[in-house]
Order: sequence, then C-alpha cells, then structure tokens
Amino acid sequence: MRRALALAEAVTNITTPNPRVGCVIVRDGVLLGAGATQAVGGPHAEVCALRDAAARGVDVRGATAYVTLEPCSHFGRTPPCCDALVAAGLGRVVAAMGDPNPLVNGRGMARLRAAGIQTVAGICEEEALALNIGFVARMSRGTPWAWLKTAASLDGRSALENGQSQWITGPQARDDGHRWRARSCVVLTGIGTVLHDNPRLNVRALETPRQPRKALIDGDFRLPEDALLIEGAPLLVFTAREDDAKAARLAQRGVQVILLPGERPGTVDLPAVMQWLAADGVNEVHVEAGPGLNGALLRAGCVDELISYVAPVLLGDAQPMARLPALSSLAQARRFEFTDMVRLGADVRVRARVAEHWDALRAQVRLG
Amino acid sequence: MRRALALAEAVTNITTPNPRVGCVIVRDGVLLGAGATQAVGGPHAEVCALRDAAARGVDVRGATAYVTLEPCSHFGRTPPCCDALVAAGLGRVVAAMGDPNPLVNGRGMARLRAAGIQTVAGICEEEALALNIGFVARMSRGTPWAWLKTAASLDGRSALENGQSQWITGPQARDDGHRWRARSCVVLTGIGTVLHDNPRLNVRALETPRQPRKALIDGDFRLPEDALLIEGAPLLVFTAREDDAKAARLAQRGVQVILLPGERPGTVDLPAVMQWLAADGVNEVHVEAGPGLNGALLRAGCVDELISYVAPVLLGDAQPMARLPALSSLAQARRFEFTDMVRLGADVRVRARVAEHWDALRAQVRLG
Repeated sequence: MRRALALAEAVTNITTPNPRVGCVIVRDGVLLGAGATQAVGGPHAEVCALRDAAARGVDVRGATAYVTLEPCSHFGRTPPCCDALVAAGLGRVVAAMGDPNPLVNGRGMARLRAAGIQTVAGICEEEALALNIGFVARMSRGTPWAWLKTAASLDGRSALENGQSQWITGPQARDDGHRWRARSCVVLTGIGTVLHDNPRLNVRALETPRQPRKALIDGDFRLPEDALLIEGAPLLVFTAREDDAKAARLAQRGVQVILLPGERPGTVDLPAVMQWLAADGVNEVHVEAGPGLNGALLRAGCVDELISYVAPVLLGDAQPMARLPALSSLAQARRFEFTDMVRLGADVRVRARVAEHWDALRAQVRLG
Repeated sequence: MRRALALAEAVTNITTPNPRVGCVIVRDGVLLGAGATQAVGGPHAEVCALRDAAARGVDVRGATAYVTLEPCSHFGRTPPCCDALVAAGLGRVVAAMGDPNPLVNGRGMARLRAAGIQTVAGICEEEALALNIGFVARMSRGTPWAWLKTAASLDGRSALENGQSQWITGPQARDDGHRWRARSCVVLTGIGTVLHDNPRLNVRALETPRQPRKALIDGDFRLPEDALLIEGAPLLVFTAREDDAKAARLAQRGVQVILLPGERPGTVDLPAVMQWLAADGVNEVHVEAGPGLNGALLRAGCVDELISYVAPVLLGDAQPMARLPALSSLAQARRFEFTDMVRLGADVRVRARVAEHWDALRAQVRLG
C-alpha cells in the first residue's frame, strides 16, 4: 500500500478534478503491475496497473491489487474500474479508503465481493485521506478543502505596519509555498493583496504540468485592469458590485466575474464562493492573502487548515497574520490540531487543521 | 563522550553555580569508572570517576578519560582535577570543550600534556556547550544566559485583551516549562505579572533537589507584601525606588532589595541586573513575564534564547508575547536561529537563540 500511496503522490499536481490514486498488483511479494491515475479523461490507476501487467506479459489472475481509493463502480469519463478488476480475475483487492461519494461508498467493494473477489479495507486510511482530502471534501460536503498559507514572525506578524512583508521567510519556505500552490486547484487572494503587492500567484519555483487557476475576492470590483494576476492561468473574480462593461473587457482576457454579494454591502458571500468553486470541480483551495481576507475566511468557517511558515524573528508592533476580533474567553479561540512541523532553511513550517473538519471527512470514507 | 554528556545532563539541576560535567574512564572499550560533578563543594566529575574506578578496584593507568569540560588547572573549592588525573596515571584525556575562563582556557590541557598525557579536544563541543551555556556566559562575558519562556497562540498572542492567559497551552507544555524553571538559577519576572497573576514561580511539576531563586523587576517597588512570590525560595527585587522601611520588612522574610535605577524614571537598568546576577553566581536566567518586561529585555539585548510554547489556536486581537516598537524595515527585525522543535501534547515547543551570542561563547571555549 505504501508503494501505491507513493504512486498516487507522484501525480499530486496532475489529476484534478479527479482524485490522486495509485494501484499496485502483487503476487507472493512480487510486483506484477503498477499505475496511477492520469490527467482528466485518462485511465484510472487500476486500469494503468492492469495495462502495466499486460505489457510485462504477466498473468494477474488470483493476484492482489492494492488501491489507495475504493475502485469506482459507476461510469464516469471512463468505464468502472471494478469491472476491469473482475474481468482480469484478481483474487483480492485491498483499498485504503472508501469512495467519498455517499451514494457509492462501499458499493465498489460490494461489487467486487459479489464477483468472488476477496476485499480488505482501511489500510493506511489516514495517509490516503490526506492525499485526497480536497476531493473528499468536494464530494461529501460540497466545498473544497481550503488551507491558509501564512508567512509570519515568531510573534505572529506577517508585515510591518508600513506594509513591508517581502522576505520575512527565506527561499526554502518560499519554494515550499510554491509546491502547495502547484498542488492546489485554485489560488485564492484578496483585493488588498493585489492593490498592495500586485502578485502573479503562479507557480514559479518548480516545474508543474498545470498552473492552478486563480480566484480573487473583490467586493467593490476594484481590480486594476493592468494587474499581473490577470495574466497566466484563468482568473475568477468574486464581487458584490456589478460592472458589466468591465466584466466584458475582462472576459475577453479569460477572466470570469461572478456576482456573489454577502450580507453587508461591498462584501462577498465567502461560503457561497466555496460552494461555487466545488461545483466547478475545485478540490483544494490555496489561500494566500492579507490579514483582512484571512480573518474573514476564518470567521466564515471557510478555513480547514493552516500552513504557517514561521521565521525566527520578532517584529513587534506589526500587522497580524489574520485580522480577528478580540475574544472575551479562551474557550472561544479557534482551535486546530498540529499535524506536522519541518525545518525549511532558517524557517519552520507548521501545519495545523480543524480537527472536526478532518474527522467529519474521515467518517465519510470509512469502509465496512 | 556521549556517556559523559549523559552523566553531565543528569546533574543539570544540581551543580549551579558550577558547570555540569561528566567524566568516563575507559580502556579498550571497557568502562572503568564514571562520575559527574556534585552539588557545590562536592567533588568534580573527574575525581568522582577516579573514585568510582578505585571503588571497583580497577587500575586506570594508561586509560582514557572522556570529560565534557577541560579539567580545571586551578584551586577553587576543590584541588585541580588535572593533578588528580596526572596522579592517577591516565594515558589520554579527551575534552569536549575548553574552560570558558579566558585565563584558563587551554591551560588545563597544556598541563596534562606537560605531564605526558595525550590530549584530544573538541569532541561533541556543541552538545557540551549547550549543557553549560550559562556557566560559559557568566565566566566569559559577565552575564548569565537568559531565555524567555513564552506560551502563545499560532498568531503570537499570549493573553486576551481582558488579560485571560491561563491554559493557552496544555499540561505537557506547562510541565516542560517547569523543567526549564528547575534547570535555571533564577526565575525572573516583572511586577505586572505579580500584580495580575500573583504567581509563585516555583518548580511544582517535577521533583527537584533545589528550587531556583526568584527575581523581580519592579521599578516603582510596588510589590505587595502578601505576594505569593515572596514565599519559598529567596527573592531578589530590582527597583528604582528607595523605600528602606519596606525593604527592611522584606529582608526579614529573605527578600533582598537591590537599587539599580535605569535612565528613565521608574525603570530598572536591565543590563546591570544581568551583571549583578552573574556576579552573584547566576548562570541561567529563566524569564517568565508579561509583554512589557519581555519587550524591555529584548530591547536591552538581555535575551539570548526564546523558548516558545505554541498552541494550535488563533486568538486574533489580543496581547502580544512581547511589546516591541514598530519597525520601519525588516532588516531591523530581531533575528534568532531555530535550534529545536518538539511536540508536547497538542502544542509545540520551538527554541530559538541569538546566533551571535551563541557563536561568541562558542569561540571562547574552542580548544587548540
């Protein structure tokens, strides 16, 4: 299963909106075939592994397939993988986790059992879920998995009062941030960041087969038409202000403007943005914004995870990583759980997630 | 040497003001004797190891002694260890680092060589220095090594605006904090913390052979005479305001009041406090204070290390871990270097030190 997970991980930046899936076919400890899901429209992992075995000229009848996700039992862009496994005469299928679609979960495995194939479920479930948490979120709750990327000082400051924020963290942290961008389906930012920094928010620090789309929260539709954000991968602008002429001009340059006003004037309905994105096939949202949008997303419950790069500096009186109102009790604090910490050059990266969000999604993919 | 370091580490909370030293005597990979420096006035590590070997009835002539600190060459409370090693007929002495006293550094080793003993220096120097960084600081620069212990949220906040600060971090982080208190010679706090929290600042979460002394920065001498801080281990009060009657009352309860006014009225000269403490035999200062004193110590250059417990929460608008003025350029930021990170229950502890402070002390103990 570890090998199947590694294969799935290798296609991290490729498969969206499909899940990252790896499959390994083994008999008596000998690898017969291996594969991972390809770019959309291409074959799924199980079919790739079967083809790999066929190309080697080996017989897979009675062998065991390890798959990081329950084989699909329905027709999508490709025929059901279950049928391919049954037709190949596999003896046993081991799946790390269930299909997150509540209408499907367990049916793939049931179909295999009905065909006389032995099934085992739940091996490396945690790792498999981490690989496809965004796909699972979109399928089972109708919103993407969103992480907030921040770069801050040890005292939690992301920019000086005068706005200076470049290079708080070092090159390794910046490159790692690009790896998270590359993995995401959409990079989301706010108009404040665009007006202040005029960023491209594309993936530059590594080769990637696909640039993520970009999304902008811009309540008053202040996006300058010469903003660098407009260049490169397609941009979605979520706004509360109609301006058909500007929208039409931007549309010619591949920018889609979506009107999703929030309750207060000039604000965007952030939960509705997340639903819109999921409906558009977005699994993972990488938020890279200023303290205003970061705070608004946190208050709206739209953040599932924090990816915090921390530099070993103290900045003192400076801008916070997220603007949040004062609390009257520690019991009201937004709680996360740390998942991992790594050193990146002089800096560290800590990841923390909302435990209830994770647990709810995990419950959706538990088999048997 | 690893074994000698472990022996030294085991006496971490015991030897002050002497350094923590371990010694292992070995021949052909066989342990002949081992020991560590005892409480003040007791024998040093080398003598303990020689006695241990004698107690086992083994002959150490020609054997190798591994010592975490260069053997002393002068008479202090005990005779020079060099002489004991020479008298015992050791064949070789391996020392992790030099004696930090610039007048001594290297002379212990030279004396051994003059007696025909082979010497090796600098093995595990970094680890040995970490064990005695406070002793080295006091001996070579005349101030203790001071670490700032903070407990904060991911966004760097140590207390809500209403002052609530208890239990931001969990029990494992709190217990670990007590281990650092126990290790220190003095626990330093500010009058704001005393007035707000009325803490004891003693070691409770673990058994300790010695409670560290306590020190209070109290410019206006506002210490309430019923403060819990006065109880237990002796308290030092550094102030800018004379009040002989109050000082006399406190003296009867073991409190020493020291007048060290700073430049601005009502402030204490913090660098002078550090010098006073070093002159009084203090190697390590554990600072556990509020944002005011934390900020003042940082501004005064009196902080060598940060020991930050970080809870996986966001607090938003709340009190900072240290009150520091706004910077106009990131180049002015106070820079540290991360040394280690550990998970402690739901929290993490990150340690970071001022690289120049560490490097300067390391240069002092480099042998040969």
